[in-house]
Amino acid sequence: MTSPAASVSLADLQAPVAGRLAGVPGEIRRIVEADFGLIAEVNSHLLQTRGKLFRPTLMLLADEATGRHEDRAVTLAAVIELIHVATLVHDDSVDHSVLRRGMPTVNSLFSHQVSVIMGDYLYSRAVVELVRLDDLEPLRVLARVTNEMTVGEMRQLLAHDRLLFTEEQYDLLIRAKTASLLSASTEVGGLRAAPHERAALRRFGERLGMAFQIVDDLIDYTEDEAVTGEPTGADRREHKVTLPLIAALPRMTPAERGTVEALMAAPEPPEALIAEVIGAVDRAGGLAYARARAHRLAAEADAELEALPPSAARDALRASITYAVERRR
Amino acid sequence: MTSPAASVSLADLQAPVAGRLAGVPGEIRRIVEADFGLIAEVNSHLLQTRGKLFRPTLMLLADEATGRHEDRAVTLAAVIELIHVATLVHDDSVDHSVLRRGMPTVNSLFSHQVSVIMGDYLYSRAVVELVRLDDLEPLRVLARVTNEMTVGEMRQLLAHDRLLFTEEQYDLLIRAKTASLLSASTEVGGLRAAPHERAALRRFGERLGMAFQIVDDLIDYTEDEAVTGEPTGADRREHKVTLPLIAALPRMTPAERGTVEALMAAPEPPEALIAEVIGAVDRAGGLAYARARAHRLAAEADAELEALPPSAARDALRASITYAVERRR
Repeated sequence: MTSPAASVSLADLQAPVAGRLAGVPGEIRRIVEADFGLIAEVNSHLLQTRGKLFRPTLMLLADEATGRHEDRAVTLAAVIELIHVATLVHDDSVDHSVLRRGMPTVNSLFSHQVSVIMGDYLYSRAVVELVRLDDLEPLRVLARVTNEMTVGEMRQLLAHDRLLFTEEQYDLLIRAKTASLLSASTEVGGLRAAPHERAALRRFGERLGMAFQIVDDLIDYTEDEAVTGEPTGADRREHKVTLPLIAALPRMTPAERGTVEALMAAPEPPEALIAEVIGAVDRAGGLAYARARAHRLAAEADAELEALPPSAARDALRASITYAVERRR
Repeated sequence: MTSPAASVSLADLQAPVAGRLAGVPGEIRRIVEADFGLIAEVNSHLLQTRGKLFRPTLMLLADEATGRHEDRAVTLAAVIELIHVATLVHDDSVDHSVLRRGMPTVNSLFSHQVSVIMGDYLYSRAVVELVRLDDLEPLRVLARVTNEMTVGEMRQLLAHDRLLFTEEQYDLLIRAKTASLLSASTEVGGLRAAPHERAALRRFGERLGMAFQIVDDLIDYTEDEAVTGEPTGADRREHKVTLPLIAALPRMTPAERGTVEALMAAPEPPEALIAEVIGAVDRAGGLAYARARAHRLAAEADAELEALPPSAARDALRASITYAVERRR
């Protein structure tokens, strides 16, 4: 977070699986195809809003790193990305978000109704595709985490305006909301590997996912709109309570705490108040605490990779940790 | 529709499976159980709003009628009802409905956000449970129809304010929205039966489901609030175009057509205008046409039952057709 730019680019870590990864967008297109006009229109909007394919990348790297080439890997990677997109479509609708990856969200471009139905459409298509593969194993992993993600979203809903929100509750939240699908991605990549390798990949993904989410929450404090494409302090504007604030609160002066309470009470907090809270969180050590926590999780993720034999794919999984904790957007 | 009361009660047709049906609510409770407070609260609200368990009834009757007793039948019946409830939770959120079965909807009692997340929660729990049964067959049927239902919801969204909506489009809509899950219910009941019996049960459920939805749309024209628990003409208030209107439009006088257009143009149509349109639809033969269509579908459903050996369960499936077309709510 302190380096001027991330030292690892996404392209670097995608290199060992570039060929198969290139097949993922076409595979997604095939899976979601619809002959109903409005659905086709939303699909084409979503396919334009190309994501970073971080989850497919992790899944393919895990597959590569175990040395067993799964023939259905591109399809599984596409299904994982599709579950991720379905979740985002519903999350944006729940949060009334207007932009995602710099593009209008489905709820803002079409309507709230279309986004509820489309999330269901995309998710049920993902399940249909998993059934078509005629193997319960990937479905077992992915059905469980999809359910966990809904619990995470519910926790998220209650994590607003809650100054009593603890680090333990935050952990449960980010584990369910973010780490679950990253962990499923690396586990699905290891489905044909030895049990100890599969378990290590699952834990790797979980640690990586928690670090990834903490860094996401830090970015909201530290980076400005020009870098992220989203306004700084968006989380505070929405009264979201994340790790930097949770860690800082007990060490704040009564005056600083008062500023935080004022922000939570303001339906539309002014910029100056948001900036003041960010300053208070930083002074009380909240940003440093969250950074340290992300680095500890990163080290734990790194240690899990020892279960795998050395390879370019394992190096890339290692690099994905650096990418996750050093990125600025 | 013309009889003073339905000649078949739900209890009549449930009799041959009453024992197993009684196990369904407890099984649903087990499947959706959550240790997260808000989810547990919504679950308990939904479990109070006890539905008619029409789909579990059909599934269990189909199982019984084929003479193969599926041990997992109660679980499968619970999963089918759960998928139905998940769909209703999202539909109510999309339609901003306030009441369902005389009880407040999740979106009205909690919030729109809670209902989006809860629908996802319930559906993903249903999938987890199906995976736990370690058999892809029921999942294959249910994943496909869940996807069809989302397409049906999207069609429904576009079926408002559309005086050019055709009977063919209406058929596609009710097939996807309603008939798909009824058909899946009877097909899942026939999973262990001979292929020709399974296929007959699938077609039986589809015809029954289409008739069921046409009657639902008729009830909105013909029954008053005291009977249905919902205001008469709700569909017209929401500018929904259903079969009675589609059939009546080409035979209306220019003045009557003008009344329909005025209703479609009114954001909140007055009661008198709604009553006038209902009268015009009736005079132009729209209600009679829809009734005749429902009866034709009922006869087709009835014919499919010839594929099954005679039994009390088959008689009850036959009675379910009478129930579906003669009910008044």
